[in-house]
Amino acid sequence: MTQAVQSVSSEVTGDLYAEVRTFYARQMRRVDALDIEGFADTFTEDGVVVHANGARAEGRAEMVAGMYANKPRYRDIAVRHWFDHLLIEPVVGGEEGELRVSYYSLVSLADREGRLTFEPTFTVEDVLVRRGGRLLTRERVIHRDLPVEF
Amino acid sequence: MTQAVQSVSSEVTGDLYAEVRTFYARQMRRVDALDIEGFADTFTEDGVVVHANGARAEGRAEMVAGMYANKPRYRDIAVRHWFDHLLIEPVVGGEEGELRVSYYSLVSLADREGRLTFEPTFTVEDVLVRRGGRLLTRERVIHRDLPVEF
Amino acid sequence: MTQAVQSVSSEVTGDLYAEVRTFYARQMRRVDALDIEGFADTFTEDGVVVHANGARAEGRAEMVAGMYANKPRYRDIAVRHWFDHLLIEPVVGGEEGELRVSYYSLVSLADREGRLTFEPTFTVEDVLVRRGGRLLTRERVIHRDLPVEF
Repeated sequence: MTQAVQSVSSEVTGDLYAEVRTFYARQMRRVDALDIEGFADTFTEDGVVVHANGARAEGRAEMVAGMYANKPRYRDIAVRHWFDHLLIEPVVGGEEGELRVSYYSLVSLADREGRLTFEPTFTVEDVLVRRGGRLLTRERVIHRDLPVEF
Repeated sequence: MTQAVQSVSSEVTGDLYAEVRTFYARQMRRVDALDIEGFADTFTEDGVVVHANGARAEGRAEMVAGMYANKPRYRDIAVRHWFDHLLIEPVVGGEEGELRVSYYSLVSLADREGRLTFEPTFTVEDVLVRRGGRLLTRERVIHRDLPVEF
Repeated sequence: MTQAVQSVSSEVTGDLYAEVRTFYARQMRRVDALDIEGFADTFTEDGVVVHANGARAEGRAEMVAGMYANKPRYRDIAVRHWFDHLLIEPVVGGEEGELRVSYYSLVSLADREGRLTFEPTFTVEDVLVRRGGRLLTRERVIHRDLPVEF
Protein backbone atom coordinates (compact mmCIF):
# COMPACT_ATOMS: atom_id res chain seq x y z
CA MET A 1 0.00 0.00 0.00
CA THR A 2 3.06 2.23 -0.07
CA GLN A 3 3.79 2.05 -3.77
CA ALA A 4 4.60 5.36 -5.37
CA VAL A 5 1.89 6.98 -7.44
CA GLN A 6 4.08 7.92 -10.32
CA SER A 7 3.79 8.19 -14.05
CA VAL A 8 3.56 4.70 -15.42
CA SER A 9 3.38 5.58 -19.07
CA SER A 10 6.72 3.95 -19.65
CA GLU A 11 5.78 0.87 -17.63
CA VAL A 12 2.29 -0.02 -18.78
CA THR A 13 1.59 0.76 -22.39
CA GLY A 14 -1.95 0.95 -23.66
CA ASP A 15 -1.34 -2.16 -25.74
CA LEU A 16 -0.27 -4.18 -22.71
CA TYR A 17 -3.19 -2.88 -20.67
CA ALA A 18 -5.64 -3.94 -23.41
CA GLU A 19 -3.97 -7.32 -23.78
CA VAL A 20 -4.11 -8.09 -20.06
CA ARG A 21 -7.73 -6.99 -19.78
CA THR A 22 -8.60 -9.16 -22.79
CA PHE A 23 -6.82 -12.12 -21.21
CA TYR A 24 -8.97 -11.80 -18.09
CA ALA A 25 -12.13 -11.19 -20.14
CA ARG A 26 -11.57 -14.62 -21.71
CA GLN A 27 -10.42 -16.35 -18.52
CA MET A 28 -13.47 -15.13 -16.58
CA ARG A 29 -15.91 -16.17 -19.32
CA ARG A 30 -14.54 -19.68 -18.90
CA VAL A 31 -14.70 -19.84 -15.13
CA ASP A 32 -18.19 -18.30 -15.12
CA ALA A 33 -19.33 -20.84 -17.74
CA LEU A 34 -18.03 -23.60 -15.41
CA ASP A 35 -15.72 -24.61 -18.27
CA ILE A 36 -13.29 -26.17 -15.84
CA GLU A 37 -10.79 -27.59 -18.30
CA GLY A 38 -10.91 -24.45 -20.41
CA PHE A 39 -10.25 -22.35 -17.32
CA ALA A 40 -7.34 -24.57 -16.25
CA ASP A 41 -5.86 -24.12 -19.73
CA THR A 42 -5.42 -20.42 -19.00
CA PHE A 43 -2.85 -21.41 -16.34
CA THR A 44 0.60 -22.86 -16.90
CA GLU A 45 0.78 -26.64 -16.48
CA ASP A 46 2.40 -26.06 -13.04
CA GLY A 47 0.15 -23.12 -12.18
CA VAL A 48 -0.68 -22.53 -8.53
CA VAL A 49 -3.83 -21.08 -6.96
CA VAL A 50 -3.89 -20.14 -3.28
CA HIS A 51 -7.48 -19.59 -2.19
CA ALA A 52 -8.58 -17.06 0.41
CA ASN A 53 -9.04 -19.85 2.96
CA GLY A 54 -5.45 -20.98 2.46
CA ALA A 55 -6.32 -24.03 0.33
CA ARG A 56 -3.72 -24.51 -2.36
CA ALA A 57 -4.04 -26.16 -5.78
CA GLU A 58 -0.74 -26.98 -7.47
CA GLY A 59 -0.82 -27.73 -11.17
CA ARG A 60 -3.73 -27.96 -13.60
CA ALA A 61 -4.75 -31.47 -12.50
CA GLU A 62 -5.27 -30.44 -8.88
CA MET A 63 -7.01 -27.26 -9.98
CA VAL A 64 -9.45 -29.22 -12.15
CA ALA A 65 -10.16 -31.76 -9.39
CA GLY A 66 -10.85 -28.98 -6.88
CA MET A 67 -13.20 -27.19 -9.26
CA TYR A 68 -15.20 -30.35 -9.96
CA ALA A 69 -15.51 -30.90 -6.20
CA ASN A 70 -16.78 -27.34 -5.84
CA LYS A 71 -19.08 -27.40 -8.88
CA PRO A 72 -22.34 -28.46 -7.14
CA ARG A 73 -22.23 -25.12 -5.36
CA TYR A 74 -23.09 -23.45 -8.68
CA ARG A 75 -26.17 -25.53 -9.44
CA ASP A 76 -28.96 -23.05 -10.19
CA ILE A 77 -26.56 -20.13 -9.76
CA ALA A 78 -25.11 -17.86 -12.47
CA VAL A 79 -21.82 -16.63 -11.09
CA ARG A 80 -19.98 -13.63 -12.52
CA HIS A 81 -16.57 -12.29 -11.50
CA TRP A 82 -16.08 -8.52 -11.85
CA PHE A 83 -12.60 -6.97 -11.84
CA ASP A 84 -11.36 -3.46 -11.22
CA HIS A 85 -8.28 -1.39 -10.48
CA LEU A 86 -5.72 -3.57 -12.21
CA LEU A 87 -2.11 -2.83 -11.37
CA ILE A 88 0.17 -4.32 -14.00
CA GLU A 89 3.87 -4.41 -13.22
CA PRO A 90 6.73 -6.10 -15.05
CA VAL A 91 8.59 -8.50 -12.75
CA VAL A 92 12.18 -7.35 -12.43
CA GLY A 93 14.43 -10.38 -12.68
CA GLY A 94 11.56 -12.60 -13.87
CA GLU A 95 11.21 -14.33 -17.21
CA GLU A 96 10.93 -12.28 -20.36
CA GLY A 97 7.51 -10.68 -20.29
CA GLU A 98 6.60 -11.83 -16.76
CA LEU A 99 3.98 -9.62 -15.11
CA ARG A 100 2.68 -9.12 -11.63
CA VAL A 101 -0.98 -8.11 -11.79
CA SER A 102 -3.20 -7.31 -8.84
CA TYR A 103 -6.88 -6.41 -9.00
CA TYR A 104 -10.08 -6.03 -7.02
CA SER A 105 -12.69 -8.74 -7.50
CA LEU A 106 -16.43 -8.69 -6.87
CA VAL A 107 -18.43 -11.91 -7.30
CA SER A 108 -22.15 -11.83 -8.10
CA LEU A 109 -24.46 -14.82 -7.81
CA ALA A 110 -27.80 -14.73 -9.66
CA ASP A 111 -30.42 -17.34 -8.96
CA ARG A 112 -32.83 -18.62 -11.60
CA GLU A 113 -35.25 -15.76 -10.88
CA GLY A 114 -32.46 -13.24 -11.31
CA ARG A 115 -32.12 -12.28 -7.63
CA LEU A 116 -28.59 -11.10 -7.05
CA THR A 117 -26.36 -11.67 -4.05
CA PHE A 118 -22.66 -11.04 -3.64
CA GLU A 119 -19.73 -12.85 -2.10
CA PRO A 120 -17.29 -10.89 0.04
CA THR A 121 -14.87 -8.78 -1.97
CA PHE A 122 -11.39 -10.03 -2.76
CA THR A 123 -8.04 -8.68 -3.87
CA VAL A 124 -6.13 -11.00 -6.15
CA GLU A 125 -2.41 -11.14 -6.92
CA ASP A 126 -1.43 -12.92 -10.12
CA VAL A 127 1.81 -13.70 -11.88
CA LEU A 128 1.32 -13.90 -15.63
CA VAL A 129 3.86 -15.35 -18.05
CA ARG A 130 4.01 -15.84 -21.79
CA ARG A 131 4.10 -19.26 -23.40
CA GLY A 132 4.26 -19.28 -27.20
CA GLY A 133 3.21 -15.65 -27.28
CA ARG A 134 0.06 -16.06 -25.22
CA LEU A 135 -0.46 -15.00 -21.62
CA LEU A 136 -1.04 -17.63 -18.94
CA THR A 137 -1.46 -17.39 -15.18
CA ARG A 138 1.38 -19.05 -13.32
CA GLU A 139 0.34 -18.05 -9.84
CA ARG A 140 -2.80 -16.65 -8.21
CA VAL A 141 -3.13 -15.66 -4.57
CA ILE A 142 -6.63 -14.64 -3.47
CA HIS A 143 -7.12 -12.48 -0.37
CA ARG A 144 -10.48 -11.82 1.20
CA ASP A 145 -10.79 -8.11 1.96
CA LEU A 146 -10.81 -7.66 5.72
CA PRO A 147 -11.42 -4.57 7.84
CA VAL A 148 -8.31 -2.52 8.53
CA GLU A 149 -7.28 -2.94 12.16
CA PHE A 150 -6.94 0.32 14.12
CA MET B 1 -16.85 -20.03 -24.48
CA THR B 2 -14.28 -21.97 -26.46
CA GLN B 3 -12.35 -19.03 -27.86
CA ALA B 4 -8.59 -19.35 -27.64
CA VAL B 5 -6.85 -17.37 -24.95
CA GLN B 6 -4.08 -16.09 -27.13
CA SER B 7 -2.04 -12.96 -27.44
CA VAL B 8 -4.28 -10.26 -28.77
CA SER B 9 -1.74 -7.49 -28.91
CA SER B 10 -1.97 -7.44 -32.68
CA GLU B 11 -5.78 -7.51 -32.61
CA VAL B 12 -6.77 -4.98 -29.95
CA THR B 13 -4.47 -2.02 -29.65
CA GLY B 14 -4.49 0.16 -26.60
CA ASP B 15 -5.89 3.00 -28.68
CA LEU B 16 -8.84 0.93 -29.87
CA TYR B 17 -9.47 -0.36 -26.35
CA ALA B 18 -9.56 3.21 -25.00
CA GLU B 19 -11.78 4.38 -27.85
CA VAL B 20 -14.35 1.61 -27.35
CA ARG B 21 -14.43 2.14 -23.57
CA THR B 22 -14.91 5.87 -24.12
CA PHE B 23 -17.74 5.18 -26.57
CA TYR B 24 -19.56 3.14 -23.93
CA ALA B 25 -18.78 5.68 -21.19
CA ARG B 26 -20.70 8.24 -23.26
CA GLN B 27 -23.45 5.90 -24.38
CA MET B 28 -24.14 4.77 -20.80
CA ARG B 29 -24.21 8.34 -19.46
CA ARG B 30 -27.01 8.99 -21.94
CA VAL B 31 -29.10 5.92 -21.16
CA ASP B 32 -28.67 6.45 -17.41
CA ALA B 33 -29.70 10.11 -17.78
CA LEU B 34 -32.85 8.85 -19.58
CA ASP B 35 -31.70 10.92 -22.56
CA ILE B 36 -33.66 8.69 -24.92
CA GLU B 37 -33.00 10.53 -28.18
CA GLY B 38 -29.33 11.02 -27.27
CA PHE B 39 -29.01 7.33 -26.55
CA ALA B 40 -30.70 6.38 -29.82
CA ASP B 41 -28.22 8.63 -31.64
CA THR B 42 -25.41 6.32 -30.53
CA PHE B 43 -26.98 3.63 -32.76
CA THR B 44 -27.07 3.54 -36.54
CA GLU B 45 -30.36 4.69 -38.05
CA ASP B 46 -31.23 1.02 -38.68
CA GLY B 47 -29.77 -0.19 -35.38
CA VAL B 48 -31.33 -3.24 -33.75
CA VAL B 49 -31.66 -4.11 -30.06
CA VAL B 50 -32.75 -7.58 -28.99
CA HIS B 51 -33.70 -7.53 -25.32
CA ALA B 52 -33.19 -10.41 -22.91
CA ASN B 53 -36.91 -11.26 -23.06
CA GLY B 54 -36.70 -11.56 -26.86
CA ALA B 55 -38.38 -8.20 -27.58
CA ARG B 56 -36.81 -6.60 -30.62
CA ALA B 57 -36.53 -2.92 -31.55
CA GLU B 58 -35.58 -2.25 -35.17
CA GLY B 59 -34.35 1.22 -36.01
CA ARG B 60 -33.99 4.33 -33.90
CA ALA B 61 -37.69 5.23 -34.08
CA GLU B 62 -38.80 1.90 -32.58
CA MET B 63 -36.02 2.10 -30.01
CA VAL B 64 -37.13 5.57 -28.90
CA ALA B 65 -40.80 4.53 -28.70
CA GLY B 66 -39.92 1.49 -26.60
CA MET B 67 -37.81 3.53 -24.23
CA TYR B 68 -40.55 6.11 -23.69
CA ALA B 69 -42.98 3.28 -22.94
CA ASN B 70 -40.52 1.91 -20.39
CA LYS B 71 -39.56 5.28 -18.88
CA PRO B 72 -42.10 5.36 -15.98
CA ARG B 73 -40.21 2.41 -14.51
CA TYR B 74 -37.35 4.80 -13.71
CA ARG B 75 -39.42 7.35 -11.82
CA ASP B 76 -37.66 7.90 -8.48
CA ILE B 77 -34.88 5.51 -9.51
CA ALA B 78 -31.27 6.37 -10.46
CA VAL B 79 -30.17 3.56 -12.76
CA ARG B 80 -26.51 2.89 -13.59
CA HIS B 81 -25.11 0.34 -16.01
CA TRP B 82 -21.69 -1.12 -15.11
CA PHE B 83 -19.59 -2.95 -17.70
CA ASP B 84 -16.69 -5.34 -17.41
CA HIS B 85 -14.62 -7.85 -19.32
CA LEU B 86 -14.93 -6.35 -22.78
CA LEU B 87 -13.88 -8.59 -25.65
CA ILE B 88 -13.25 -6.52 -28.76
CA GLU B 89 -12.84 -8.39 -32.03
CA PRO B 90 -12.63 -7.09 -35.59
CA VAL B 91 -15.35 -8.66 -37.76
CA VAL B 92 -13.70 -10.61 -40.54
CA GLY B 93 -15.56 -9.88 -43.77
CA GLY B 94 -17.48 -7.00 -42.17
CA GLU B 95 -17.32 -3.34 -43.11
CA GLU B 96 -14.08 -1.44 -42.68
CA GLY B 97 -13.59 -1.03 -38.93
CA GLU B 98 -16.54 -3.20 -37.89
CA LEU B 99 -16.17 -4.64 -34.40
CA ARG B 100 -17.84 -7.35 -32.40
CA VAL B 101 -17.79 -6.40 -28.72
CA SER B 102 -19.15 -8.47 -25.85
CA TYR B 103 -19.19 -7.49 -22.19
CA TYR B 104 -20.63 -8.24 -18.77
CA SER B 105 -23.26 -5.82 -17.50
CA LEU B 106 -24.43 -5.13 -13.97
CA VAL B 107 -27.37 -2.73 -13.42
CA SER B 108 -27.78 -0.85 -10.13
CA LEU B 109 -30.96 0.94 -9.08
CA ALA B 110 -30.74 3.58 -6.35
CA ASP B 111 -33.88 4.98 -4.81
CA ARG B 112 -34.20 8.54 -3.56
CA GLU B 113 -32.74 7.57 -0.16
CA GLY B 114 -29.78 5.92 -1.87
CA ARG B 115 -30.75 2.31 -1.14
CA LEU B 116 -29.23 0.13 -3.82
CA THR B 117 -30.70 -2.90 -5.51
CA PHE B 118 -29.49 -4.76 -8.57
CA GLU B 119 -31.07 -6.29 -11.63
CA PRO B 120 -29.94 -9.75 -12.73
CA THR B 121 -26.60 -9.74 -14.54
CA PHE B 122 -26.43 -9.72 -18.32
CA THR B 123 -23.94 -10.48 -21.06
CA VAL B 124 -24.26 -8.22 -24.08
CA GLU B 125 -23.09 -8.76 -27.65
CA ASP B 126 -22.73 -5.65 -29.78
CA VAL B 127 -21.72 -4.93 -33.34
CA LEU B 128 -20.10 -1.50 -33.65
CA VAL B 129 -19.47 0.28 -36.92
CA ARG B 130 -17.95 3.60 -37.93
CA ARG B 131 -19.96 6.35 -39.57
CA GLY B 132 -18.01 9.50 -40.43
CA GLY B 133 -15.22 8.40 -38.10
CA ARG B 134 -17.34 7.88 -35.01
CA LEU B 135 -18.41 4.59 -33.50
CA LEU B 136 -22.08 3.63 -33.47
CA THR B 137 -23.88 0.49 -32.32
CA ARG B 138 -25.53 -1.35 -35.22
CA GLU B 139 -26.70 -4.34 -33.24
CA ARG B 140 -27.10 -5.25 -29.58
CA VAL B 141 -28.21 -8.63 -28.27
CA ILE B 142 -28.75 -8.79 -24.50
CA HIS B 143 -28.64 -12.15 -22.70
CA ARG B 144 -29.69 -12.64 -19.10
CA ASP B 145 -27.07 -14.72 -17.30
CA LEU B 146 -28.60 -18.07 -16.44
CA PRO B 147 -27.25 -20.94 -14.35
CA VAL B 148 -25.16 -23.43 -16.30
CA GLU B 149 -27.09 -26.68 -16.73
CA PHE B 150 -25.29 -29.78 -15.47
CA MET C 1 -25.04 14.72 -21.03
CA THR C 2 -25.03 16.29 -24.48
CA GLN C 3 -21.43 15.60 -25.40
CA ALA C 4 -20.91 14.26 -28.89
CA VAL C 5 -20.20 10.58 -29.22
CA GLN C 6 -17.36 10.94 -31.65
CA SER C 7 -14.12 9.19 -32.37
CA VAL C 8 -11.76 9.94 -29.55
CA SER C 9 -8.78 8.04 -30.85
CA SER C 10 -6.88 11.28 -31.28
CA GLU C 11 -7.91 12.52 -27.82
CA VAL C 12 -7.39 9.56 -25.52
CA THR C 13 -4.54 7.30 -26.49
CA GLY C 14 -4.29 3.82 -25.10
CA ASP C 15 -1.20 4.86 -23.16
CA LEU C 16 -3.02 7.72 -21.45
CA TYR C 17 -6.01 5.50 -20.70
CA ALA C 18 -3.76 2.89 -19.06
CA GLU C 19 -1.88 5.56 -17.12
CA VAL C 20 -5.04 7.15 -15.73
CA ARG C 21 -6.52 3.78 -14.76
CA THR C 22 -3.26 2.84 -13.04
CA PHE C 23 -3.27 6.14 -11.16
CA TYR C 24 -6.72 5.38 -9.79
CA ALA C 25 -5.83 1.75 -9.06
CA ARG C 26 -3.11 3.06 -6.74
CA GLN C 27 -5.14 5.92 -5.29
CA MET C 28 -8.06 3.61 -4.44
CA ARG C 29 -5.79 0.99 -2.80
CA ARG C 30 -4.66 3.76 -0.48
CA VAL C 31 -8.08 5.09 0.43
CA ASP C 32 -9.45 1.56 0.91
CA ALA C 33 -6.48 0.70 3.15
CA LEU C 34 -7.36 3.80 5.23
CA ASP C 35 -3.85 5.06 4.39
CA ILE C 36 -4.96 8.64 4.93
CA GLU C 37 -1.64 10.40 4.43
CA GLY C 38 -0.82 8.18 1.45
CA PHE C 39 -4.18 9.02 -0.08
CA ALA C 40 -3.71 12.75 0.52
CA ASP C 41 -0.34 12.51 -1.25
CA THR C 42 -2.14 11.60 -4.46
CA PHE C 43 -3.63 15.13 -4.43
CA THR C 44 -1.82 18.37 -5.06
CA GLU C 45 -0.88 20.29 -1.90
CA ASP C 46 -3.82 22.64 -2.58
CA GLY C 47 -6.14 19.89 -3.77
CA VAL C 48 -9.87 20.28 -3.19
CA VAL C 49 -12.53 17.66 -2.55
CA VAL C 50 -16.20 18.57 -2.66
CA HIS C 51 -18.25 15.78 -1.11
CA ALA C 52 -21.74 14.77 -2.21
CA ASN C 53 -23.24 16.50 0.83
CA GLY C 54 -21.52 19.77 -0.13
CA ALA C 55 -18.77 19.54 2.51
CA ARG C 56 -15.54 20.90 1.12
CA ALA C 57 -11.95 20.05 2.06
CA GLU C 58 -9.35 22.51 0.80
CA GLY C 59 -5.74 21.36 0.80
CA ARG C 60 -4.14 18.16 2.01
CA ALA C 61 -4.20 19.16 5.69
CA GLU C 62 -7.98 19.66 5.72
CA MET C 63 -8.44 16.49 3.73
CA VAL C 64 -6.39 14.48 6.23
CA ALA C 65 -8.23 15.97 9.23
CA GLY C 66 -11.59 15.17 7.67
CA MET C 67 -10.59 11.59 6.93
CA TYR C 68 -9.38 10.99 10.48
CA ALA C 69 -12.69 12.36 11.78
CA ASN C 70 -14.51 9.95 9.47
CA LYS C 71 -12.27 6.95 10.15
CA PRO C 72 -14.28 5.32 13.00
CA ARG C 73 -17.01 4.68 10.44
CA TYR C 74 -14.74 2.04 8.87
CA ARG C 75 -14.09 0.08 12.05
CA ASP C 76 -14.91 -3.55 11.23
CA ILE C 77 -15.71 -2.62 7.63
CA ALA C 78 -13.66 -3.38 4.51
CA VAL C 79 -14.55 -0.64 2.05
CA ARG C 80 -13.83 -0.90 -1.67
CA HIS C 81 -14.39 1.74 -4.34
CA TRP C 82 -15.22 0.44 -7.83
CA PHE C 83 -14.93 2.68 -10.89
CA ASP C 84 -16.37 2.46 -14.37
CA HIS C 85 -17.00 4.42 -17.54
CA LEU C 86 -14.08 6.82 -17.31
CA LEU C 87 -14.25 9.83 -19.62
CA ILE C 88 -10.81 11.36 -19.98
CA GLU C 89 -10.60 14.77 -21.63
CA PRO C 90 -7.69 17.17 -21.97
CA VAL C 91 -8.53 20.56 -20.48
CA VAL C 92 -8.35 23.18 -23.20
CA GLY C 93 -6.54 26.22 -21.83
CA GLY C 94 -5.40 24.31 -18.72
CA GLU C 95 -1.87 23.51 -17.67
CA GLU C 96 0.24 21.27 -19.85
CA GLY C 97 -1.20 17.76 -19.44
CA GLU C 98 -4.21 18.79 -17.37
CA LEU C 99 -7.09 16.33 -17.63
CA ARG C 100 -10.74 16.34 -16.77
CA VAL C 101 -11.81 12.81 -15.80
CA SER C 102 -15.29 11.72 -14.82
CA TYR C 103 -16.34 8.23 -13.76
CA TYR C 104 -19.03 6.15 -12.10
CA SER C 105 -18.29 4.95 -8.59
CA LEU C 106 -19.79 2.07 -6.62
CA VAL C 107 -18.77 1.60 -2.97
CA SER C 108 -18.97 -1.83 -1.30
CA LEU C 109 -18.79 -2.38 2.46
CA ALA C 110 -17.93 -5.87 3.72
CA ASP C 111 -18.29 -6.69 7.38
CA ARG C 112 -16.05 -9.13 9.20
CA GLU C 113 -18.22 -12.09 8.13
CA GLY C 114 -18.02 -10.96 4.52
CA ARG C 115 -21.60 -9.72 4.20
CA LEU C 116 -21.70 -7.07 1.53
CA THR C 117 -23.71 -3.88 1.43
CA PHE C 118 -23.42 -0.92 -0.90
CA GLU C 119 -23.50 2.83 -0.58
CA PRO C 120 -25.54 4.82 -3.08
CA THR C 121 -23.85 5.22 -6.46
CA PHE C 122 -21.88 8.34 -7.30
CA THR C 123 -20.53 10.13 -10.32
CA VAL C 124 -17.21 11.84 -9.75
CA GLU C 125 -15.58 14.70 -11.65
CA ASP C 126 -11.83 15.07 -11.21
CA VAL C 127 -9.19 17.43 -12.50
CA LEU C 128 -5.81 15.71 -12.77
CA VAL C 129 -2.53 17.51 -13.26
CA ARG C 130 1.09 16.47 -13.60
CA ARG C 131 3.73 17.38 -11.05
CA GLY C 132 7.23 16.12 -11.79
CA GLY C 133 5.84 13.69 -14.34
CA ARG C 134 3.34 12.02 -12.03
CA LEU C 135 -0.41 12.47 -12.01
CA LEU C 136 -2.10 14.08 -9.01
CA THR C 137 -5.71 15.03 -8.33
CA ARG C 138 -6.17 18.80 -8.04
CA GLU C 139 -9.94 18.78 -7.72
CA ARG C 140 -12.62 16.20 -7.03
CA VAL C 141 -16.36 16.87 -7.06
CA ILE C 142 -18.54 13.94 -5.95
CA HIS C 143 -22.20 13.78 -6.96
CA ARG C 144 -24.67 11.29 -5.54
CA ASP C 145 -26.68 9.78 -8.38
CA LEU C 146 -30.26 10.98 -8.08
CA PRO C 147 -33.37 9.95 -9.98
CA VAL C 148 -33.96 11.93 -13.18
CA GLU C 149 -36.89 14.30 -12.70
CA PHE C 150 -39.68 13.94 -15.26
